[in-house]
Order: sequence, then C-alpha cells, then structure tokens
Amino acid sequence: MSVTVVGSIAFDAVKTPFGSRERMLGGSAVHFSLAASFFDVVHVVGPVGDDFGEDEYAVLQARNVETGDIEHVAGGQTFFWRGEYGWDLNERETLDTQLNVFAEFEPKLSEASRTADVVFLANIQPDLQRRVREQCEAARFVALDSMNLWIEAARDSLIETIAGVDCLMLNDSELRELTREPNFVRAANQVREWGPSVVVAKQGRYGAAMITDEGFFALPAFPLETVVDPTGAGDCFAGGFMGYIAAHPGTELDHDLLSRAMAYGTALASFNVEEFGVERVARLTSDEVADRVAELRQMTHFIEKPVVLRR
Amino acid sequence: MSVTVVGSIAFDAVKTPFGSRERMLGGSAVHFSLAASFFDVVHVVGPVGDDFGEDEYAVLQARNVETGDIEHVAGGQTFFWRGEYGWDLNERETLDTQLNVFAEFEPKLSEASRTADVVFLANIQPDLQRRVREQCEAARFVALDSMNLWIEAARDSLIETIAGVDCLMLNDSELRELTREPNFVRAANQVREWGPSVVVAKQGRYGAAMITDEGFFALPAFPLETVVDPTGAGDCFAGGFMGYIAAHPGTELDHDLLSRAMAYGTALASFNVEEFGVERVARLTSDEVADRVAELRQMTHFIEKPVVLRR
Repeated sequence: MSVTVVGSIAFDAVKTPFGSRERMLGGSAVHFSLAASFFDVVHVVGPVGDDFGEDEYAVLQARNVETGDIEHVAGGQTFFWRGEYGWDLNERETLDTQLNVFAEFEPKLSEASRTADVVFLANIQPDLQRRVREQCEAARFVALDSMNLWIEAARDSLIETIAGVDCLMLNDSELRELTREPNFVRAANQVREWGPSVVVAKQGRYGAAMITDEGFFALPAFPLETVVDPTGAGDCFAGGFMGYIAAHPGTELDHDLLSRAMAYGTALASFNVEEFGVERVARLTSDEVADRVAELRQMTHFIEKPVVLRR
Repeated sequence: MSVTVVGSIAFDAVKTPFGSRERMLGGSAVHFSLAASFFDVVHVVGPVGDDFGEDEYAVLQARNVETGDIEHVAGGQTFFWRGEYGWDLNERETLDTQLNVFAEFEPKLSEASRTADVVFLANIQPDLQRRVREQCEAARFVALDSMNLWIEAARDSLIETIAGVDCLMLNDSELRELTREPNFVRAANQVREWGPSVVVAKQGRYGAAMITDEGFFALPAFPLETVVDPTGAGDCFAGGFMGYIAAHPGTELDHDLLSRAMAYGTALASFNVEEFGVERVARLTSDEVADRVAELRQMTHFIEKPVVLRR
C-alpha cells in the first residue's frame, strides 16, 4: 500500500544553543516523508519554487519518496521559515515566515496520491486539509496535525475538518487550546465526540500520549544526551506512526497496533533531533530504527512481580 | 524492615478549580507516610504544635504509621501553608507560609527511626537533611527531595547533602535549575558525579523519569479524567517508590526493581490527586493499588512484533 502526505516543503533557518543553519531543507511534508519512507511508498504533495533544485529532490529520492506530486511553481520561491530556540529547547521564536508559493497553494493529487491507504494532513490551512481529505475517499486511516495559528484564526473550519479524520495529532498545549480543556483525558474525549477515534498528544521532551476506543497509551521521548534541533520532530513522529500503520494493510488498527506505531514514531522523532534539519534521518538505516525501538521497549517496560501489600 | 521519613507535618489551605479546603492535614512527611504504609512500617519524624490533635494522629495510625517520633512542641502551632492552583493545575501560587514550630526544628530520631532500612529526607533545609542522614548510618537506601528555595538560598549545602545519599528525587524544573543543565540525561549524570547512583525527575502531569547505573526508565502519569488537588503528589510518589524498596530487604536494588518501584510510586501519586489532601489515600486499599499498577503496565507496554523496514 502507500502513504500520502500533504504539507509544507520548506527552507528553514534555525538557531539553537548547539549551532545554526542559514538555509536547510525542511517543512512538515519533508520530515514526515523521510520518516515514513522506512515503512512504505510515500507520495509527498506540496508546492516549491525555482530555488528548490536537484539537491533537494535528491534527499527525498534517496529514500525512494515519490516526488511526482511536488508542484513546481515557475517564478516562485519556496516557503521559508526562520526560528530560534531558547537554552532548554522548549521555547521557540519564529523570526520570519515567507509563505511564497504556499500563499496560493491548492493541493492537486495524482491518482496514485489520491488512492493511498494512509493519508497525513500535515499542518496547513484547515479548508485545504478538508479538500484533500475529500479527494482521498479510499483511505483506510487519515490523520491531521494543526497549530495554534489555525485554532485561533479558523477554529470552526478546523473542527469541521477534524470531524472527517480518524486521528488528531496535536501538540499537548494546542490540544488544550483547541478543546479549552486542560486535562488530556477530557480533551481527547471532546475530540472523539467530534469524530476521530484516535487522539495523540505530542508532549515534546516528555514523549507522547494516545487515547483510542480501547484506552490510554503513552511513551516517554527517547532519552538523548544532546538534542541539537527539535525542528520537525513532531512530523517525524507522525511519519513513523503513520508509516507503521501503512506497513500493516489488512490488519485491524487496534490499540496494540497503534501502540507499536507510537513506538516507531518515538524512535523516528528521536533521530531527527540529533542533528539539524533532515541531516540525521537522511542517512538513517532501518537497523538503527529497529534497535532504537527495542531500546525504548526496555526503557519503558517493567516486569510484574507480586508484592504483599499491607492491608 | 522499616522506612523513616523526616519532613513537614502541616495544615494546608488549598484552592483548585475543583474546590477548596480551608484547613486540612498535609505536609510532605504525612503524604509520604500514608503512601509508604502500604509496603512496610513507617516512622514519621517532624514537629507539630498544640493544634495537632487526635483526629490528625488517627489518620496516620489508621494506616499503622509509627507516630512516636512526631515531636509535640508545647505552646507552638503546626506548620501552615496556603496555596492556589491555576486552571490547568500546572502552576501554583503560594499565598501564605507560616513555619511556626518548624522554624526551630532539630530532628531527633529514636533508635527505631535511626535504624530504618530505607530513609526519605523530604524537602527541608539541607543542613537538617544532612544531620538526619548522619544519624541513619545503617540505612540501605537514602533518598532526598528538595525545592527551588534551597537551590537558590543554600545550593552548596544542598550539593554536599546530595553527595551523601543514594537517590535524588526532584521536580524536573528544579533538577534543571540545580544542575544548570536543561537536558535530563546530562543533568542526571551531573548529579551522579556528586554521589547518588539514582536520579528521579518528577514531571507532574507527564509522569517521572529515572536514571540508574543501568540506564534510563520512564513512566507516564496515570491518566485521570479529574485531578482535584495535586498537593502532595510528589511525596506520595516517593512514598510508593521508597516503600516498594523497603518491602524488598535482602534484594539487590537493581534497575528492574527500581523500575517497579517507579510504577508503585506512580500509582500512589495518582490516587493522591483524585481528592483533596490525604482524603483519597487515607481510605485507599491495597487491592486498588495493585489493580492500578496492573493497569499502568498495560498502558505503557507494547508487544514487539517484527516489521520489515525498507532499507
């Protein structure tokens, strides 16, 4: 089967306490694609400008990402973002956003992209997400990400779009903002009333938590001594999560399978933050992914041994 | 064997979005004792005033906590704290602190308290913690908690005290403040250079993470639809954690055992926040504790199933 992602393809300028990059390949659809490429064929959909060249295509194609639905806007410039992270990498400030070709973007999906088994609507304007969703009628599992900008500027449209997907995947704080509910269990239940059966809260350095029809599941972030650049971690998480689902066609998407998908998402996100931009994931191997999932399992599993409690 | 805890015994006034209490039993040593009482004999050490009466003793004694080392200061008043929590329970403001009998407190441990197998130095002035530590020469496992007040006012003394214990257990943000290191792995390694082999970061709503000689372990907080009052959750976590260790005399305190201790700590903390003060833990049953640990295990364990990754 295959995975389709619609989202931003970008050049990023990033400064963190560990260094900086003036112009590197980025964007939610790029980070997602590279992570999901470990599991299945990935179709990436998004606009680029004249400045997006062979070097950038090569990064995606080296991981066999299908780039046929990348729309080249002649005379345009690729989306650009500049941001800086504080000392503990928990806060980030956006210093510049140039929408460029993204300002007029209207997703056009090829037959191959439209018929994908698994679809990820990365963080773009919710009306656009909904129009993509409507084109992908056959998809078995559709997930959506968003951000505070749309929660504040287009909440009604966002909730309408959420109603049409299977899974909402948001930053913890954005889930609180969207639902106006500080408690994760209640926030997830609110979202589940709108439509999705699966809700995932991305908690940054603390990991991720999920609620499905069958209950709660959570994993910590993989512990790293040095986190160089958190940009794209959430999209890599989504790529690992959705990729794992795509790799299991004809299997019931039950709580156990989604829990394992969380583990692969966690592993992919952890590699992403080890270096700037896509640098680490671009040269990642499948053995490294498998090893990290096994390590994560050890770091979260405890062996049950009965203890006699007093009264 | 047995557990000794030295810390505050208090009356708390607490306001949360779910209600308020004007005067209820609290204090780190009280919350710890009730949680640890599910595992072993607990000796509680701390001062109280004339306002601490039979009703308060009865709560501790109902769970067989040894109250002989509670020091009654005639003519004094018990430590009092008033605080209020914000809408998401993540921020709290201290509105009033009356040290009262705590101002002149000098811990005096009976023979039974001094010879405990497991000792918890709850959050008090680090010089006092060190003097308690020196009295408990025979202890197999000593853990220490502290707070931003002491990190800011008595950092050198605190680090000297930390050097003499086996385990440092701090709030996540305080561990960052103490070590001036935002990354948990690096912060824990710094602490381990000072002395303790075990470092636990309490992460509030996100759970807790640990580093031992053998590596990393983490658990999410148990998911609850309603958290009524977070006061004392960290001390209940410590009570469950240390109690579990005390319940295993003659057993090597390896990573697996400490990981299970984390699970019991997480369970005890989760009950504590379901109601105000000690209300929930005071009527908790050992079956409820065991059931919650089993549930927590299910919510964090994923079954490994090989997946064929692409290259």
